[in-house]
Order: sequence, then C-alpha cells, then structure tokens
Amino acid sequence: MFHDAGCMTQRKKAAKVPAAPNAFDYAHKHPREIVWMSQNTNHIPVSDVIDKAILKAVRDKEYNLYPRSGGIFGLCDVVKDHIELPKDYRVLLTNGGIEATYILNRALLKKGDEVICTDPSFMPIHHQVSISGGKLVEIPIYRKPWKLTPDWIRKSITKKTTTILLIDPINPLGTAYTRPEIKEICEIAEEHDLLIVDDVTYRDFSMPVPTYKYVPDRTVAVYTFSKQCGLAGMRIGALAAPPHLMERMMPYNTNVLSVNILAQRAALAAMERIDAWLPALRKQLLVNQRIIKDSVDSVKGCFLPVYPSRTNMFAVDIGKTGANPDLVQDMMLYDHNVFVRSGNYVSKNFGKNFIRVSFSVTEEGAERFAEAFPKVIAKLRK
Amino acid sequence: MFHDAGCMTQRKKAAKVPAAPNAFDYAHKHPREIVWMSQNTNHIPVSDVIDKAILKAVRDKEYNLYPRSGGIFGLCDVVKDHIELPKDYRVLLTNGGIEATYILNRALLKKGDEVICTDPSFMPIHHQVSISGGKLVEIPIYRKPWKLTPDWIRKSITKKTTTILLIDPINPLGTAYTRPEIKEICEIAEEHDLLIVDDVTYRDFSMPVPTYKYVPDRTVAVYTFSKQCGLAGMRIGALAAPPHLMERMMPYNTNVLSVNILAQRAALAAMERIDAWLPALRKQLLVNQRIIKDSVDSVKGCFLPVYPSRTNMFAVDIGKTGANPDLVQDMMLYDHNVFVRSGNYVSKNFGKNFIRVSFSVTEEGAERFAEAFPKVIAKLRK
Repeated sequence: MFHDAGCMTQRKKAAKVPAAPNAFDYAHKHPREIVWMSQNTNHIPVSDVIDKAILKAVRDKEYNLYPRSGGIFGLCDVVKDHIELPKDYRVLLTNGGIEATYILNRALLKKGDEVICTDPSFMPIHHQVSISGGKLVEIPIYRKPWKLTPDWIRKSITKKTTTILLIDPINPLGTAYTRPEIKEICEIAEEHDLLIVDDVTYRDFSMPVPTYKYVPDRTVAVYTFSKQCGLAGMRIGALAAPPHLMERMMPYNTNVLSVNILAQRAALAAMERIDAWLPALRKQLLVNQRIIKDSVDSVKGCFLPVYPSRTNMFAVDIGKTGANPDLVQDMMLYDHNVFVRSGNYVSKNFGKNFIRVSFSVTEEGAERFAEAFPKVIAKLRK
Repeated sequence: MFHDAGCMTQRKKAAKVPAAPNAFDYAHKHPREIVWMSQNTNHIPVSDVIDKAILKAVRDKEYNLYPRSGGIFGLCDVVKDHIELPKDYRVLLTNGGIEATYILNRALLKKGDEVICTDPSFMPIHHQVSISGGKLVEIPIYRKPWKLTPDWIRKSITKKTTTILLIDPINPLGTAYTRPEIKEICEIAEEHDLLIVDDVTYRDFSMPVPTYKYVPDRTVAVYTFSKQCGLAGMRIGALAAPPHLMERMMPYNTNVLSVNILAQRAALAAMERIDAWLPALRKQLLVNQRIIKDSVDSVKGCFLPVYPSRTNMFAVDIGKTGANPDLVQDMMLYDHNVFVRSGNYVSKNFGKNFIRVSFSVTEEGAERFAEAFPKVIAKLRK
C-alpha cells in the first residue's frame, strides 16, 4: 500500500510507459538494466563473506530448522557492540527495521498519544503510529536546517505528547543531528517525560550520536542490516531497548519464531567484518554524490538541500523547474532505466518539490543518473 | 516467550542436564547430533531445486534489493493453484504462517469477540487473540474423536462469538476433519454469521477439505512452506482471503517491504515441483510413524490417541505411566539426543498426559526415538 500507486494518465503523456502496471513491476522485470536509486538499497559490493556464510548455511540445511528464538549465537552481541548499546539493553531480531517499529508502536502507544515526527519522513512508520491510535504531529523540515530543531520540538509538545520519533540520519534529506542537538533533544525528553524512538537505520554511514547515550531509559532503538550491508532483500533488522521497555514490547512480538536463518548468517558475517569494508563504502558514497551534485548544479532551478549527505541518499530539489516529480520518476525510469523516487512518496506537503535519489550504486550508476537528469528536467520543465 | 522456560531444578534430578540454559540452546549448540522431533519441522530431503534456486538468487545478488511488494512473479499464483483457493482470493506473503495469524487477529478482532478454538492447540495463535482483545473459548479435544465436533462448536456459541479457529490437520494431535464435518462446521458459520480462520499449515500431508470450498466469503486461510517444503528456517508463509477481508487486513500488514527474497525463491522452486516430491515424503512419514507406534505400543500405559496421523506429528500419551512430560523431553534430549516436546507446550489442561513427536525426520531418526523412548519411560515411570 505504500508502493507506487501512480497516475497512469499523466504518465503516459510524459514518458514511454510500458505495459507494466507500476514502476516497481517494471523495474523488477528488468532488474539488471535498472540503476536502483529508489529505495536506499545498497548495490555496492561490500564483502564476499556474506555469500560464503549464506552458502554454508544452505549446505548445512540450516533452513530446515526454526532458528533459535534469541537469534543465532553471537548476532545480537555483535549488534550491541557495534552500535554501542548500553550494557543492559536487550536486542530482538526483527524482519527488517520496519517490523521493529511496528512492534514498538503497537506496544507503546495508547489512543490519543501524540508523536512528534517530521514531514518529509519514512511514511510507513507514520501509518503504524496511526493504526496504533497515535496522533502524528508532523513538523515541517523541508526548510533550513533540514531537520528538527530543539526549539520546534518544544513548541510542538502538548500534554498528550508521549514520543519523539527521530530518524537519524534523516530519510530522505540526508541530514544528521549534531551532538549538541541530540543532547538538547534528550533534555527535552527528560523534562517532559517522553520516549524517544531513535531509528538508526542509516547511522553506519556517518555515526551520529544516538539518544541512548544520554537517555538510555527512555530510548527504543531501531537498527537494520539492509542499507550498509546491502541486505534489504534479506529482511533483517533489530529492536533494542532497556529491559523495562522490552518487557512491554515482547507480548506484541510479531514473529516468535525468529527471523530467516540465512539472513541471520549473512548479517553476522557482514557485521563481524564491518570495520574492514565500511570505509571503502563510505568513500564511494562521497564520490557518487559529488557526481550527482555536479549534474544537479548544472540544471537551472535545481539544488541539493543537504550536501554532503550523511547517509546514502538525499533530496534533489526541482521545485523551481515546475517539473512534476512523479513524471520525473517515470521518465528517468522508463526512458533511462534510472529508478529514483518522487518526493510524493516521502512527503505529504513538500513532495512536489523534490525527488529522492539513493546513490549507493556503482559509480557507473551515478554517472547514468548524471547524464539522464538534465535531459529529463529539460523535457518536463514548465 | 513461547519457547522452553523450563524448570531446571526438577530437570537436574532427572537427566544429565548440561550447562546450556534451556533445551533449545542445547539443541542449537549440537544441531547435527540431534534428532529434531520437537517443532514439526521437516528434515527429510525433498528436492534439490530448492538449494539451486537459493544459490542462483545469491549469485544474482537479488538480496541487495527490496523484494517486489506483491512477491516474486509467480509465487502467489502457484500457491493459489496448489491449495485451490477461490479465484477472487488474494494472497499476501508473510514471514511464516504465524505472521499471517498475527495480522488477521489484530485486524479482525474487536474487544470481547469470542473465538472458538481448542485445547491442545498451537498456543502462539491464542496469545495473538488475547492481545487483540479477543476471548478464547478453548474446547477440550484431548478426548475422542480428538478434534472439534460440530456439536461441541454449537454448544460453545454465544452472542459474542465471531470466529472459529480451525487448524486442520490439528497440531499436536494429527487428526484431520472429514468432508462432512467441514461442511457442517461451515453451515454453523453461516447460521451464526461467523468467520472461520482455516489454518492449513499441515494440509499438504493429507489434503483435508478447506472451509473456503464451502464458505469462501467467510474464510481467512493461513498457509506456510515451513513444514512440507522443509523451509521452517526461511520464515515464509501466506495469508489468503477474499477481497473484502483482505482489505480489512492490509492496513495491519506487519511488513510492507515483503518477505526474504531467498525464502521466496526457495518456496517458488519447491512449489513448482511439489507434485513430484510430495508422494515420497508422505510415504516416509507413514514408515516413520509405524516405527514409533511399535515402540510406543511396547510400553505399558502408553498409546497413540491418533494413528495414523494425517500430518507429520502426533501426541504420545504417557498419562498412565505417571512420568512428567517435561522430564521425558529433557531425558530424551540430554541423554539420547532426541528432541521431542512436552505436552505442556501445547496444552494448558492436558499437557501432563502426553509428549508431541514430529516424525518428518530420517528413518534412522525415527529408530533412535523408538530405541530411547521405552528406556526413558522406564526410568521416569511412577
């Protein structure tokens, strides 16, 4: 339901729209030809230990068995070490970070609870808040400094506020919070007795300070192996919290039979050697975003709100060109095989101003974007 | 939380209990030595197409991408064909059958709704009913005919009854419903305007008639690839329902980013050739349960309530021996490396009378059970 619903009438006018009913179907029918810049997935090879670990588990027929309920030995510990969780934190493996947010929202929200969050954002989490009875207080951050400020948070707090949803670095903008900002946000949480959901999905790209450094007792953290490790298709993530919060969440665990065993083996292998492969990945991301920036800067009326991005994606503002971002997405995809995402996917109020571009692709992929983007805007400019 | 909590004091008296804190930890530390008869998993090799499909997907780095939201092309269709779902039914892939029941319980139950189910049963589903506000009406079926009867269902219906939870064949007893029974249960559902949750997790072992043959508009079906295909560790299943019910459930979908891609590839490969490998699997199950029956029949005071089982497990009644099934489980595991399950895992009121034994293991595994069981009962008999 969060995927491309599309507007085929408009689209047919703009790009060579094929018979496939939506962008994802089209892309999945031509996976090798597509440059996947649409979902913040990582296509830069990270380490061959991943494939080796999967293949060994397949040979051993580990998949015949239900995985151990606490996860394979070592995986939760390596996560705890790597993201520097407090010692008493407990870790639950989940089917992707999105299952972690599903569980925590169902378990911790009561009807009418207000959740401070942002627009733009990763919208499926907002939906999870809604179905749990929570009320979304979406602070507009498609403006400088392109992230929440402690001041904006203070002004949004009411008697009903129970939670701050922090995504750090921010999808889709690429902003990250500074240490003083995090510290102040944590102080606000203390003052007003709030919970912080610290979604650290993208933290490995630039290591911002997590809120559990300051307010471990009022933080629930969400982690995933999807982005940095290139394991989006394996659907594995983690929920981490202090014991008193984990005890409240466990009854709502969506899957008491644990997470795909091959995903666990892949994640463990990747994490055990992450310090060896992460620097090269980060370096390529800087190269790729420079290539994209040069292209964007060459197009009149376009700019990057946040540069350099602290993660593997950013927004490309096209507002002044008058081009419809849905049509930009389509034309980039159908005419150039470059799959970017319309801002409308991640923002109710600002989506018409931008596209989201993930650049954890090969350098050749970034170059294909750089070549196609000016042509597409030239055609769609109003 | 549904796994072995254990009672170490009692246990240490009975069997050579090792340092591992619970049975599952112990078993997962010695996976190759254990005969896994504890969780209805399938360890009989079914088809080499499964490994091939996984390896191809790994080579193609399909795991870098989020899977298509509707599942890989073809998988939902092959499920629809294989379990003969009505044409208008929709299929949602889930992280195991247990995620399907999680979604449907959250979506379809209101506070106070009464759900007719059984004791013994697969308890995690009952927990899902409870956290969704539903009230469990557990009909005792640890008595002849070892399954629900239409008459017992009728007597349990009140004004608040909204749902019948049918698991067919039944975990842990191995009973299946006959066509006339299913027909009558469906008539009851019509008369009283009830929903039927038809959990067909074990249907491939003996093909009982599903309720969607008679009341497609009031059935939600749950399927899984875990048992017959030997894919328990891949965590893939499916939820199937007519459009009006699927629309009510989709907002509660726990994972809008779909299911592990390697699991999908494995499931598709297995299902495309299921008619080729299923007969041999069924045949081995008959051989194995015969081996187990001979052993059980040789032990005074023990019997099989249901034989032959219509699925890959059954209950072994040990009530008259006075042996504690928790201790039987431990001694079988720690002294004989045969992992069976205490009845207390699947029944609140009758668990002390039986152990559950899954026999989708190699013939040698079944023989190891047959050898160990009489010895263990001899030691623990009161």
